[in-house]
Amino acid sequence: MNLPIDYEFDHVGIAVKSLGEGEKVYLAMGFKAGHTEEVPSEKVRVRMFELGNNARIELLEATSPESPVARFLEKRGPGIHHICLRVKDIRKSLLGLKAANIRVINEEPIQGAGGCEVAFIHPSAAGGVLVELSQKRSSK
Amino acid sequence: MNLPIDYEFDHVGIAVKSLGEGEKVYLAMGFKAGHTEEVPSEKVRVRMFELGNNARIELLEATSPESPVARFLEKRGPGIHHICLRVKDIRKSLLGLKAANIRVINEEPIQGAGGCEVAFIHPSAAGGVLVELSQKRSSK
Repeated sequence: MNLPIDYEFDHVGIAVKSLGEGEKVYLAMGFKAGHTEEVPSEKVRVRMFELGNNARIELLEATSPESPVARFLEKRGPGIHHICLRVKDIRKSLLGLKAANIRVINEEPIQGAGGCEVAFIHPSAAGGVLVELSQKRSSK
Repeated sequence: MNLPIDYEFDHVGIAVKSLGEGEKVYLAMGFKAGHTEEVPSEKVRVRMFELGNNARIELLEATSPESPVARFLEKRGPGIHHICLRVKDIRKSLLGLKAANIRVINEEPIQGAGGCEVAFIHPSAAGGVLVELSQKRSSK
């Protein structure tokens, strides 16, 4: 099955020890201070830096030692944590992944930042890359 | 100095053991087989998978054991290697980085994939992230 799925690049997620420390280089590069939000499902606080083509850099700070980002920092130190691809219909995408036997972390979408519905593909199925799929909610 | 720089997300670079192995998940996800190119300056062969908003996923296969990608694979295994932000004037961007005391790997642009001029910011200056800046050549 080869679903005709249109992907867009939504963001790259970068694990930082603290947002204040992590954002310094982006502010120095001329980025505008970004929108900050807490994402309880992932136990993180995120800050977004907007790029011109409807994409962003997302800095991730853990809000709990049990956060996946805290565990990532412990193992690997600060750095790129995941990429997020935007899809139009995340349920259809998840069905396509299932049909292709691609292992996912979330079989059903969960609540992500910015009111999006998101689901993660398992890094073991994607060459060591944690891939997030994200769909904007149509209802405001 | 706060330069008014407009960044766009160009691509995420993913280190793979081989393009053939690494691309399987993207083909299974419905991506079209991408453009392949050798980049001698980085000792890599790259394959691009296009995303809708003028961004792409770049798979990187080392063409020599001395390639930075070969060393990355040895240390960390397959996974996300770098991000690339598109700028309009890379020389101006490099001047801005210098003024902000941000450590770079290339003080002058080098030749990247797709005929672009590129330069890398050092991961030590960007929270563990290897950031590539890229400018499309205006002359064809």
